[in-house]
Amino acid sequence: MAIVQCVPNFSEGRDLDKIEKIVAPLRGKEGVKLLNYEADKDYNRVVVTVIGEPKAVKNAVLEAIGVAKEVIDMNTHKGQHSRFGATDVCPFIPIKDMTMDEAVELAKEIGEEVSKLYDIPVFLYESAASKPERENLAKVRKGEYEGLDAKFEDPNWAPDFGLAKKHPTAGAIAIGARKPLIAYNINLDTPNIEIASNIAKTIRQSSGGYRFIKAGPVEIPERGITQVTMNLTDYTKTAMYRAFEAVKMEARRYGVNVMGSEIVGLCPMEALVDCASYYLGLENFSLDKVLETSLME
Amino acid sequence: MAIVQCVPNFSEGRDLDKIEKIVAPLRGKEGVKLLNYEADKDYNRVVVTVIGEPKAVKNAVLEAIGVAKEVIDMNTHKGQHSRFGATDVCPFIPIKDMTMDEAVELAKEIGEEVSKLYDIPVFLYESAASKPERENLAKVRKGEYEGLDAKFEDPNWAPDFGLAKKHPTAGAIAIGARKPLIAYNINLDTPNIEIASNIAKTIRQSSGGYRFIKAGPVEIPERGITQVTMNLTDYTKTAMYRAFEAVKMEARRYGVNVMGSEIVGLCPMEALVDCASYYLGLENFSLDKVLETSLME
Repeated sequence: MAIVQCVPNFSEGRDLDKIEKIVAPLRGKEGVKLLNYEADKDYNRVVVTVIGEPKAVKNAVLEAIGVAKEVIDMNTHKGQHSRFGATDVCPFIPIKDMTMDEAVELAKEIGEEVSKLYDIPVFLYESAASKPERENLAKVRKGEYEGLDAKFEDPNWAPDFGLAKKHPTAGAIAIGARKPLIAYNINLDTPNIEIASNIAKTIRQSSGGYRFIKAGPVEIPERGITQVTMNLTDYTKTAMYRAFEAVKMEARRYGVNVMGSEIVGLCPMEALVDCASYYLGLENFSLDKVLETSLME
Repeated sequence: MAIVQCVPNFSEGRDLDKIEKIVAPLRGKEGVKLLNYEADKDYNRVVVTVIGEPKAVKNAVLEAIGVAKEVIDMNTHKGQHSRFGATDVCPFIPIKDMTMDEAVELAKEIGEEVSKLYDIPVFLYESAASKPERENLAKVRKGEYEGLDAKFEDPNWAPDFGLAKKHPTAGAIAIGARKPLIAYNINLDTPNIEIASNIAKTIRQSSGGYRFIKAGPVEIPERGITQVTMNLTDYTKTAMYRAFEAVKMEARRYGVNVMGSEIVGLCPMEALVDCASYYLGLENFSLDKVLETSLME
């Protein structure tokens, strides 16, 4: 049986009532399991993880996108994270008995439905992108919600589904298909965003760093600190501990300390076990020696 | 449905044919899942982990104990690990919908059957012990196989089941019920067993160390190193990383380095995730954020 994971990000991280309304359609549906949702106040964003049978997941997420359109007004939205829509991104990740092409197909199906049902313009990204310059989410979202009117004046940025016109409160949405990633942030004990930015540059692929790290700086004003925020796009090749140690190593240059880190959304067990294995120097260890909690249920 | 884990240790770690014969009864049985078996040449011992429905696990393990009696001759057995029988220990661990009392009952049932079917004297240990001085496995096994004749001359050491007489090739067996533990060894880059012994003393409860660590020294002559070998008897209270860092800290005193470590048998996922969480300084992390491999199957 095919299993897909979907990780929609909604632009609401503070109002718990609204968040509950958005995730409600993902609960109690046959073939859909809501695994996790995690709101971030600074980002003013909630990251939701569902898993299940492809059609069932698609239909449930479609409903949630509809609710987000009703309860979120992008004209008043403020947060530390880039965003251009009420449902900002919606990636599908093939997990089992499913090819990337099939995940792309699912992304296109829901994209067409979102544009028709909700009048929200849809961009396809990553593996679902219609042209190479749309593969990178950061480029698709560049200009954010406030820049959408200008973006749509450029014929190169016509949406993949819907009219070249932002939804007046829900903006636009990026729907894609991709491999699993880990959203990973490392906290620095400095309020200086330039330091976070310089460190991000040294570790990310685009400016000479590790192949499977995307990174940027974020301010966390309420704690007086900054963050290197990352996507680890292939943790089997660029491990989480490597990102962590690389940031620590670069931070030394500025007399700055790494205070800790955080994982946003879910993290595959094997990525965490790999970190334990690295730090404990485990010999002869393999994943089949891990007694998973769900095996005991 | 009740689930029990059983971790029998057999005194054969070198002859793969014999090991396969011993684990064969644990395969393909309704209600029994063979999770792992791991042979150690230096220890000349194999640690097997099965999980499943209590009666089914008991019957399958009973068969395996019978095979071990046939294929292992303790009179020619040599290895770095203490042992007094062909099946040396056989602990039952209640995992789900099962009390410790029920695990004790299971241990007693199989104990009686082992003595009757195979003429092997049985000692009950840990939670199944018939008197306090039999709770500690090390005390039960003291004198090892070679000391069994002398042990049985002492009326205080009459077995819990069977006659006070060792089986001529299979010795004796310790059967018990206990909480989950992690068998964890840390490798030191010294051949000096006294250093390993001194470090073991500093970290184990019995001589002033951590509450839930049992530890001792082991020589690994083929690698020219030594090991601090441990049982972490409650990893939720004495974490794996704490044992590792404590050994590193003590080793410095001797100019000795920790080369790495190893887990024998299975390790609960949460113990490894806790280590990753410690070393990465994860904030706001909890087990429900781990995407387990078996959820994706």
